[in-house]
Amino acid sequence: MSERGILTVISGFSGVGKGTVIKRMLRDYQAYALSISATTRAPRVGEQDGREYFFKTREEFEAMIAADEFVEYAQFVENYYGTPKAYVEQMLSEGKDVILEIEVQGAMKIKEKFPDAPTIFIVPPTPDALRERLVGRGTESQEVIESRLRRAVEEADSMDQYEYLVINDDLDTCVRQVHAIIQSEHLKGSRNIEFRTNLAQGMNKFLKGDR
Amino acid sequence: MSERGILTVISGFSGVGKGTVIKRMLRDYQAYALSISATTRAPRVGEQDGREYFFKTREEFEAMIAADEFVEYAQFVENYYGTPKAYVEQMLSEGKDVILEIEVQGAMKIKEKFPDAPTIFIVPPTPDALRERLVGRGTESQEVIESRLRRAVEEADSMDQYEYLVINDDLDTCVRQVHAIIQSEHLKGSRNIEFRTNLAQGMNKFLKGDR
Repeated sequence: MSERGILTVISGFSGVGKGTVIKRMLRDYQAYALSISATTRAPRVGEQDGREYFFKTREEFEAMIAADEFVEYAQFVENYYGTPKAYVEQMLSEGKDVILEIEVQGAMKIKEKFPDAPTIFIVPPTPDALRERLVGRGTESQEVIESRLRRAVEEADSMDQYEYLVINDDLDTCVRQVHAIIQSEHLKGSRNIEFRTNLAQGMNKFLKGDR
Repeated sequence: MSERGILTVISGFSGVGKGTVIKRMLRDYQAYALSISATTRAPRVGEQDGREYFFKTREEFEAMIAADEFVEYAQFVENYYGTPKAYVEQMLSEGKDVILEIEVQGAMKIKEKFPDAPTIFIVPPTPDALRERLVGRGTESQEVIESRLRRAVEEADSMDQYEYLVINDDLDTCVRQVHAIIQSEHLKGSRNIEFRTNLAQGMNKFLKGDR
């Protein structure tokens, strides 16, 4: 059926383990590729251009913005971060299912440009499970912990913006469910108009005896 | 998450093997139940009331129509066939995913009453594959074969009414894909509003230290 890849947006609570879920998807299934962001921040030790990030100067990044070369971008502190259109498009046309891990505002911008991109929000099984992960081992200051908890409450407001909710309780189940979502997206009639048209046209020959 | 079952509508070309797909789903996964139709036709040898069909007299069936007890019904030749609401509702509330194998007109009626029921159309990999199955071993009259082929061409007009297209080429793949569709439907945010609300409310307690 459709050979073009699907762009999937994955968001979720900080601390819910979405990075681990995505790593497992990339490890377990050939079909996936991770969207790579561009950034103006300096590479850290061990980071490689085109693997962790596409590293750009401020001038290069702003030229890309001017040329409308980002699906979305944002500025955090001193630096720009953005999703380059060209890379995503290249992966999709090669038939890769591209996974984009992104926070809520970015996700909504993606949805504007890729209206058929499924959006998935990863949630904890219970509020207490998330609280435990955010509080951690009690080595952090009360201030840090409270700011994390506040952030989680803000993130909860955005859950209803997403098409799918997947619980990350058992990691294997979570990975399997995200995979099932993307598989089933491939089977949507709206993604297979060409297959459908060809099948119907091919079947019209069944009737040629009538003519 | 949501404990209510999902009603899934499965249609497809005659001869495409959808009966086999559904039998395999019922055999391989606990979650599924088959919707059982009511009919006024006489039971055949070996058929059991409440297993193959709910057998009804014409008077009983017409009383059920008058009482709006069918999701859909139709008359073929001399007999009524219909999908009793009560049975479907009971299975769904027990958490069973109910599969309803039905032709196109019936499917569209289901969709009116159950707008969130996913609709799946099973297709052959190629026109020729379907033709081979319809022509069979050449033991049938030219007339029978031509009427089958004509029917298939008519059925093709309805493919675009369905949300999902699944190819039945390799049976295992087809069964797995139909299962993935129904699994992913369970993960839709719109089916898990209660879970989402409870999670957000539970998390609001994270902030009670602020008050």
